[in-house]
Amino acid sequence: MNINRYCDNPIITPGTVLASRKDFQVIGAFNAGVTVFNGETILILRVAERPINSDDKSIKVPFLDDNLNLKVKTFNKNDENYDFGDSRAIHKKGNVAAFEYLTSISHFRLARSTDGEHFKVDEKPFIFPANKYESFGIEDPRVTKIDDSYYITYSAVSKFGIVVMLSSTDDFKTFNNLGAIFATENKDVALFPEKINENYYALNRPISPSIGNAVIWISESTNLLHWGNHKVLIETRDGKWDCKKIGAGSPPLKTDLGWLEFYHGVDDNDRYCMGALLLDINDPSKILARSSEPILEPIMEYETKGFFGNVVFSCGTIVNHGVIHMYYGVSDDSMAYAQFKLKDVLDSMEYLKPKK
Amino acid sequence: MNINRYCDNPIITPGTVLASRKDFQVIGAFNAGVTVFNGETILILRVAERPINSDDKSIKVPFLDDNLNLKVKTFNKNDENYDFGDSRAIHKKGNVAAFEYLTSISHFRLARSTDGEHFKVDEKPFIFPANKYESFGIEDPRVTKIDDSYYITYSAVSKFGIVVMLSSTDDFKTFNNLGAIFATENKDVALFPEKINENYYALNRPISPSIGNAVIWISESTNLLHWGNHKVLIETRDGKWDCKKIGAGSPPLKTDLGWLEFYHGVDDNDRYCMGALLLDINDPSKILARSSEPILEPIMEYETKGFFGNVVFSCGTIVNHGVIHMYYGVSDDSMAYAQFKLKDVLDSMEYLKPKK
Repeated sequence: MNINRYCDNPIITPGTVLASRKDFQVIGAFNAGVTVFNGETILILRVAERPINSDDKSIKVPFLDDNLNLKVKTFNKNDENYDFGDSRAIHKKGNVAAFEYLTSISHFRLARSTDGEHFKVDEKPFIFPANKYESFGIEDPRVTKIDDSYYITYSAVSKFGIVVMLSSTDDFKTFNNLGAIFATENKDVALFPEKINENYYALNRPISPSIGNAVIWISESTNLLHWGNHKVLIETRDGKWDCKKIGAGSPPLKTDLGWLEFYHGVDDNDRYCMGALLLDINDPSKILARSSEPILEPIMEYETKGFFGNVVFSCGTIVNHGVIHMYYGVSDDSMAYAQFKLKDVLDSMEYLKPKK
Repeated sequence: MNINRYCDNPIITPGTVLASRKDFQVIGAFNAGVTVFNGETILILRVAERPINSDDKSIKVPFLDDNLNLKVKTFNKNDENYDFGDSRAIHKKGNVAAFEYLTSISHFRLARSTDGEHFKVDEKPFIFPANKYESFGIEDPRVTKIDDSYYITYSAVSKFGIVVMLSSTDDFKTFNNLGAIFATENKDVALFPEKINENYYALNRPISPSIGNAVIWISESTNLLHWGNHKVLIETRDGKWDCKKIGAGSPPLKTDLGWLEFYHGVDDNDRYCMGALLLDINDPSKILARSSEPILEPIMEYETKGFFGNVVFSCGTIVNHGVIHMYYGVSDDSMAYAQFKLKDVLDSMEYLKPKK
């Protein structure tokens, strides 16, 4: 399949983003949600920051304290109680599954473009962690326009786990926090842009410490705030690029053949690729087709190297005249941009035979 | 506090319950939900069964296959890939947090009594695992009467994790499955018996593999099917009987002072006790009081010894003329019964000072 990566990728890098405080540095501007507002392409960037630290014997970690003030805690790298081998988080020794602190704290920043290629990044945060469920940051926003409002779902990380928050905005200046729509642990929530047979639908990715893989579920709602009738939509596939974990990427796009969803798949080497699903237009819990091979995989240097390399991770796409404009985070670091034909995606997928 | 344990405890033991199949044996009849229907006390028993096995070199585990047929898989106890040390589950070697199979499969059986002390157990199951989310069994039912229906929440266990299912019945003969109301992993869901300011409320216990303890959350709904605005209600307490895990027990009881909730707390030795919470009558996310010490703890031999000892675990209570009738599972094995005064519970709790 022909993938047209933008020649001047990455389109946004951490170095072009102003830190929210003088004593912090931006280390990531990635995994953005995308939409069109007032004729402009808007990226809701995840901006990861950490305290500036010139002492290579220590790690400084940022977090909101119980009074919701941003504080910094310093760990000595010789502290034998902790494992500092993960660039993203600090773990207790011997417990790599769970983490104690994140090494950075993320907020959301808007970037705007009139041509979809050149973006101007706001100097100030749009949404900053602001409640006890967000004390370690907010991550990976997806935005869906429903009626006249823009609904933003994102991961809120704290000592209480990883919950999915919903916020809405009508003007990309102010927003309303509408509460946690999925309790811990859930992530990767993509809202469908309209009701289907009287229900809203959301793709989501709950996970259990007891049993089961990270797979994509689908849930329904009548009001966007309360969700239920949770079902597994689609599972990981042994031996494939999506064998270890899968999660929704962009909010689903309405096509003549069904709902098109770009999702991320992770393999046993923690390599993140993007593939596609096609869901029944009247019953999105029914799968019509799935990518056998990835549509987009980390190949370019900006996709294979960075804060956490070998990652392409899209939280949003725009369709325009049969062309998919995919904006995607690379290596937990920067934003890149690619174009490809909707028809090519639909032709590339493996269609399931209907059950008799 | 004066706790009056029934003199002839336990009131139901596995030996008095007929297996659902001739090749199975009942190993547990415990953790029952309780309600009053047509003047009778009804227990919704969790009945755990396993295949009869005379070969002490093997373990036979029951499960529903992909066609929802009950099957048995045999493990050789010498198989070095697995750890057979947990009486409740089979784990992969080196991974005690996650399990591969359960050693028994649970269903729900009704037991009825006219005096609240002597129960007749039905010969046939009331609800049996019947869908892909229940392939390892259904566990720990709680029942709440809302208007004229009885709503039963329970844990459904499968390779997809542990989800909370909702079923309803009007007659305790047939039931409707209303779907998964909380996705994996969640447990210990107790529904309030009425709407409070236009919302239903549920206590629940989601958990994350990444970070955070097993604590009690509260969620709201307008229709009992879809849930949101998830919030942490109350946390574990270091160094106390409820330091490791807590979860809702009985559906909350309406009292003059507020909503009274009996919850279970687990300490670092996996000892399960029951304590109480008092929640604001108009805003159940607000805590008024909490037990400093357990109300009920495993002391009697039937509470300290059994399939999984040192456990008292109540999923339901009845109040009658100021007396609490607590039905509770003991040692993941049998059912016991105790009475105590509502006033004594309310007097025993530690009241939080209102924030100024």
